[in-house]
Amino acid sequence: MDDYFLRSLEIHRRTQGKLEVRSRMRLESQDDLSLAYTPGVARPCEEIAKNPAAAWDLTWKGRTVAVVSDGSAVLGLGNIGPAAALPVMEGKAVLFREFAGIDAVPLVLDTQAPDEIVDIVRKVAPTYGGINLEDISAPRCFQIESQLQDIGIPVLHDDQHGTAIVLLAALWNAARVQDRPIASMSVVINGAGAAGRAIARLLACSDGQDRCIPVAKIRICDSKGILWPGRPGNDPIKEELARDTNPEAEQGDLRAALRGAHAFIGVSRGNLLRAQDIRTMASDPIVLAMANPIPEILPEEAYAGGASIVGTGRSDFPNQVNNVLAFPGLFRGALEARAKSFSDAMKFAAVEAIAEAVHDPSPRGILPSPFDRSVAVQVAKRVAEAARESGVCHAGA
Amino acid sequence: MDDYFLRSLEIHRRTQGKLEVRSRMRLESQDDLSLAYTPGVARPCEEIAKNPAAAWDLTWKGRTVAVVSDGSAVLGLGNIGPAAALPVMEGKAVLFREFAGIDAVPLVLDTQAPDEIVDIVRKVAPTYGGINLEDISAPRCFQIESQLQDIGIPVLHDDQHGTAIVLLAALWNAARVQDRPIASMSVVINGAGAAGRAIARLLACSDGQDRCIPVAKIRICDSKGILWPGRPGNDPIKEELARDTNPEAEQGDLRAALRGAHAFIGVSRGNLLRAQDIRTMASDPIVLAMANPIPEILPEEAYAGGASIVGTGRSDFPNQVNNVLAFPGLFRGALEARAKSFSDAMKFAAVEAIAEAVHDPSPRGILPSPFDRSVAVQVAKRVAEAARESGVCHAGA
Repeated sequence: MDDYFLRSLEIHRRTQGKLEVRSRMRLESQDDLSLAYTPGVARPCEEIAKNPAAAWDLTWKGRTVAVVSDGSAVLGLGNIGPAAALPVMEGKAVLFREFAGIDAVPLVLDTQAPDEIVDIVRKVAPTYGGINLEDISAPRCFQIESQLQDIGIPVLHDDQHGTAIVLLAALWNAARVQDRPIASMSVVINGAGAAGRAIARLLACSDGQDRCIPVAKIRICDSKGILWPGRPGNDPIKEELARDTNPEAEQGDLRAALRGAHAFIGVSRGNLLRAQDIRTMASDPIVLAMANPIPEILPEEAYAGGASIVGTGRSDFPNQVNNVLAFPGLFRGALEARAKSFSDAMKFAAVEAIAEAVHDPSPRGILPSPFDRSVAVQVAKRVAEAARESGVCHAGA
Repeated sequence: MDDYFLRSLEIHRRTQGKLEVRSRMRLESQDDLSLAYTPGVARPCEEIAKNPAAAWDLTWKGRTVAVVSDGSAVLGLGNIGPAAALPVMEGKAVLFREFAGIDAVPLVLDTQAPDEIVDIVRKVAPTYGGINLEDISAPRCFQIESQLQDIGIPVLHDDQHGTAIVLLAALWNAARVQDRPIASMSVVINGAGAAGRAIARLLACSDGQDRCIPVAKIRICDSKGILWPGRPGNDPIKEELARDTNPEAEQGDLRAALRGAHAFIGVSRGNLLRAQDIRTMASDPIVLAMANPIPEILPEEAYAGGASIVGTGRSDFPNQVNNVLAFPGLFRGALEARAKSFSDAMKFAAVEAIAEAVHDPSPRGILPSPFDRSVAVQVAKRVAEAARESGVCHAGA
């Protein structure tokens, strides 16, 4: 780790950040200037004034995503603010460029008031074709994302949905390996933050969803144990999750929830579980332990407890669950379809495309490699199709 | 013109806008990913959290300018709004890249309320090293620019200062050609909008300025004639300009103002003056007629009236006054010095550098060619020196 830290600092200093902006037009003569700028540029301006959808054809809008953060929940660093968050947002923009050919730019905001963030994103929206919300703390991220669904370009909080989509693809292929119908599974999600809620939402059908994968049973836990409706201290988000997943109001701690469950999904903190906890689950359980850098349980410990398939967020273990499998293709597909928002159907299309990118899943090969560049292409294709079918697109795509 | 319009539309469609975002780091292996993104990126983040000035070293901030517009006063097109203004802002970003190696990005805003624009720019400021305000209508542009002087990065409304700086360099070299001290000149400025006010401010010393070029007399005219203090209908900006330039409260129309003047600077509208108007000026007058595409008076007509030196905004006449001589070097110098704002001394340094870029000025050669790439280098050098002398810089430059 120290080695990565030092080398990363050195590279950032040498390159002065990771992004650069280039011109796609020559500018060598008065003639070039008259085409790129005045007087010629007046013509594309007029075209967009007449027909706003022409901005997707005539400007960078149709290729561009803003990576927006207030720096309130950055990686393992916490609330370090906008200036210090900038290297992460540049890194995300690099991933967009490298994995999906998207021209992404960071936009860090010197405010952590949800209403102000919503207002700013709404007003800068004509500049971009999509907004990737990044490293914004829960529960503020839910409100911010939800209030930005009507701004005419797709807005996605990647810490919620990117993670959820790749985890579901992992769960899907784990079920294929085990030849067990996903609809028969009992799933425990530990962590009721950004990712936990998004996973639950994709698994638990509730009002206003256009698509979900119903499973037999979901229990969501936080540090106080199983969420149940009416639990003292529930915020509105937890109360809603509890109602959607646990109407029976089952109570208990994480260990109680695990008993007899088929799958554990951890989006919480490291070093929580032991082999004996896994032994209380159903036979051949699936363990997806996302905490970084130390997972909720290390793979060898989970295997010792009888787990048959184990995934983590780490690159040094098999079955790495990495957002980069999802967000580049998700936004690429949305841009290609000129989507106005991300529907549930578009997110499921991404789950399916990622899962199907593994032709022959095995216990240690349920996900494609994060460096398989064909995944983003397939995800984009399926997401664009789903967007067009959902009817959430601007004309002209 | 029609030819430029059609070819410009075709090029914009083919390239889908003019900008693209590239990565400065390789991303081919897990090792690369660990340096550009997690876990390595945490180290530059921590460095900036400890010392905010490190953002200039470790991110694109030290190389990046946002070109911000609300689309309220776009070229000759007027108030076409943010989406339709985007091609112009991309074009400006291309000029920043090509003339000064600056990584500029557009930011168009879906609001025309000055307070909201100020608030948004203030809050996005941690993302960038400078803000170029563009095509924002007067008098809103004055309030917006003025309220953004304390945000810690330099903010400049180019339609005001870029134009004023190049015009003053032209006037300076015209005075050198004529061997006439600029301090003895009587100057008429026609147009009390964005550029007119900025020119007057650089020529008329008033409170709070750290540098100006005093001339003997200034008269500013608008469509109702000479500005004078107390003139009915004066807005606060015009009243201030009238007080600073015309405390004698001289009244009259543009023609009255021209009588005996040494220089005419037009930043108004086309086809206003005839040869006989120029004949009423002092001998060998200087005429800088900026209206686009038709200047206030065509060069041949001005020469027929006795003008000795004539400049316009057009590339097909001699002495083209083009902002591109100023803004790329201005921002480059400000970024290199890590300036917190643009002082008057920095603007004068740009005037001097542009004027001195012409070694041997002549009546038809008072300005360097807009394509002389050495101008931005010289402007940047002098502006950075002036910034450091003004003491308006962040540490570490």
